[in-house]
Amino acid sequence: MENTMEQQIKITEIENGGVGSPTGFITGGQRIGLRKSKPDMGWIYSQQPAAAAGVYTTNLFQAAPLKVTKTSLQEEQKLQAVLVNTVSANSCTGEQGIKNAFTTRKWMAKHLKIPEHYVAVASTGVIGLQLPMDKMKKGIEKISLDTSEAPFEKAILTTDTHTKHLAVRLKAGGKTITIGGACKGSGMIKPNLATMLGFVTTDAAVSPDDLHSALLQVTQKTFNRITVDGDTSTNDMVLVLANGMAGNETLTAAHPDWPAFLAGLKAVCQGLAKFIAGDGEGATKLIEVRVTGAKDEQAAEVISKTIVGSSLVKTAVFGSDANWGRIVCAMGYSGEPFDPYKITLKLGDMLLFEKGMPAVFDEKQAKAYLDRDSIIIKADLGEGSGEAVAWGCDLTYNYVKINASYRS
Amino acid sequence: MENTMEQQIKITEIENGGVGSPTGFITGGQRIGLRKSKPDMGWIYSQQPAAAAGVYTTNLFQAAPLKVTKTSLQEEQKLQAVLVNTVSANSCTGEQGIKNAFTTRKWMAKHLKIPEHYVAVASTGVIGLQLPMDKMKKGIEKISLDTSEAPFEKAILTTDTHTKHLAVRLKAGGKTITIGGACKGSGMIKPNLATMLGFVTTDAAVSPDDLHSALLQVTQKTFNRITVDGDTSTNDMVLVLANGMAGNETLTAAHPDWPAFLAGLKAVCQGLAKFIAGDGEGATKLIEVRVTGAKDEQAAEVISKTIVGSSLVKTAVFGSDANWGRIVCAMGYSGEPFDPYKITLKLGDMLLFEKGMPAVFDEKQAKAYLDRDSIIIKADLGEGSGEAVAWGCDLTYNYVKINASYRS
Repeated sequence: MENTMEQQIKITEIENGGVGSPTGFITGGQRIGLRKSKPDMGWIYSQQPAAAAGVYTTNLFQAAPLKVTKTSLQEEQKLQAVLVNTVSANSCTGEQGIKNAFTTRKWMAKHLKIPEHYVAVASTGVIGLQLPMDKMKKGIEKISLDTSEAPFEKAILTTDTHTKHLAVRLKAGGKTITIGGACKGSGMIKPNLATMLGFVTTDAAVSPDDLHSALLQVTQKTFNRITVDGDTSTNDMVLVLANGMAGNETLTAAHPDWPAFLAGLKAVCQGLAKFIAGDGEGATKLIEVRVTGAKDEQAAEVISKTIVGSSLVKTAVFGSDANWGRIVCAMGYSGEPFDPYKITLKLGDMLLFEKGMPAVFDEKQAKAYLDRDSIIIKADLGEGSGEAVAWGCDLTYNYVKINASYRS
Repeated sequence: MENTMEQQIKITEIENGGVGSPTGFITGGQRIGLRKSKPDMGWIYSQQPAAAAGVYTTNLFQAAPLKVTKTSLQEEQKLQAVLVNTVSANSCTGEQGIKNAFTTRKWMAKHLKIPEHYVAVASTGVIGLQLPMDKMKKGIEKISLDTSEAPFEKAILTTDTHTKHLAVRLKAGGKTITIGGACKGSGMIKPNLATMLGFVTTDAAVSPDDLHSALLQVTQKTFNRITVDGDTSTNDMVLVLANGMAGNETLTAAHPDWPAFLAGLKAVCQGLAKFIAGDGEGATKLIEVRVTGAKDEQAAEVISKTIVGSSLVKTAVFGSDANWGRIVCAMGYSGEPFDPYKITLKLGDMLLFEKGMPAVFDEKQAKAYLDRDSIIIKADLGEGSGEAVAWGCDLTYNYVKINASYRS
């Protein structure tokens, strides 16, 4: 398994943890009138400037806030505050949209009395809608680091049905460090980031360059391994802030505790990614696809993502129908070559297909398994040692309902 | 437009035409007890052996009937009969499945008193189910070239809601020739062929090699330009049979009337492809996406197929929501590079987006347009002369319903 290394490192999950769990981070949310009754603006503030890194959507249309956040990070690779709004994605909004994103960054910096380039901005919502600048201005001016109407985790949601957050503790660099995270989904989700905003905070001291490569490495195996509907959004971003307030020796890729830090970061990102997949628009079930025995990890990744992205697999899971033909069909069109006669396919531990032929299995037992709210599909290609895990969700009436009436 | 050439050639559509329209083709269908009450076996017979060619799914798991049909065609590039069954796809059925497909070919040849390699077999239905050989045998023995319980076009359907067929007439090689076609959809449909069976017949005399390249060329712009759900099936096949009974000079790529023949073949294949897209599982609307101004045709093809394949675009069309943000978003993740600031996007003739910015448009008028059962999305990239058209359908509650309960 991919996780062998991590299993030797003691990582403790913090009950009800989130981005506010690491030392020195203050987070909050409020309603500024973008949504009818729910909170719609969230913020993260670090008492010390934090080493920071980001990963961004691969969509050619990168939304304005991503461009502004990149500008911030380019300056010193540091951040001290993050501002998030919902309802308007500030995407495909032209020069005006970029100007508006810079203006909100300026207002936020002024309000918090920090340099502008210490502020990151993130937006989620409808594409093509300009930010309502009046409301944004009043909202920013109302931000208080002492009290907060709503948790950050709640204020950043759109069609998500619940908040998504967790935090872990581990030893690194001679101290106990905490890594926390929060994110939102839940449509336009597909590998290579999607309408997904992820925020990770830690009180560890980490070298900025190594923090960036750690985020890239971990994102590849976590956030980039989920799909809800195959649509890659214009606004996706994952940011990590490391403020060093745990007082540990600065972690670098050369430090003996680097694997521990990586494992902690992966635990947080993987947890958040699974939350997003399981809470995909309209979803009733989390689907985990484990591909093993591939010629290499990339082949395993492509096949696992193809299976979990197949509309026919997703509807079969929704209907609790062990229609394994759709799974092998998806493997067959993944574009990765393999020998169909060497495949073993399992649902949980139940054998469905072996060496090019259907296996005899108990349909009732398979149906009972598929009725669970979390199911695992295992495909072994019998060719090499490449393996990968991908996560997704079922395709339901509610997905159609939510998306046929999203804007209106 | 792609069709300039064809517009100079007179092609007449035959009312209610189909695979039986060209001279010398006898077609039929019957119920052999695979389905509860609907016909489930169809056949095409040519009075003369016909030059023939096929294109097949790119799925790694190619179903047994495809392997057997390829074997038939390899011998002489000729066919005289095609046998189609529904319910069992005879896919992922191992050596037994291949043996069974060869056996049905043998039975069909014997019954019709023609060589085995003049018979093609095609199957559609559930993956992993062996052919019910008793019923197949009795069914084949019952086939009559004089009478038929049901039309061929009806006997090959699965979840299709209506038959799909057309035929055209044109002058070529000194004679009037007829080209007819029939096909079935309607799930697991994605570019590069899908649970799609297409049959094209013509009484034209055509060189077998050139017939094959004509089919490849035309398929690329017709059947390979449709998507219903992004799943590419294991059973797709398009066969063309040209029996020469029109008595024309044999058409080759060098013949002056070759463009006319190509245009007729394309008209039939495009008509069938659009029928499949418009009758996608659960579909209420046909979506046509026209991309122009791309750097080349391939870029235009990729972008048009990405738009028409986006779950979010498909649900927006279902909900008659002019959510153009989802269209530009899909363009942005297509993988093809272009300048977002040069794009013009239209719904029918209504401007939605221009040069990186939303256009002002009448939402009511857009909704009225989207309420039609056939809609056109036009995207111009403003970069070159590459263009392509792709077809798909909306994503509806019924798609989920059909596919959550297909097998059970």
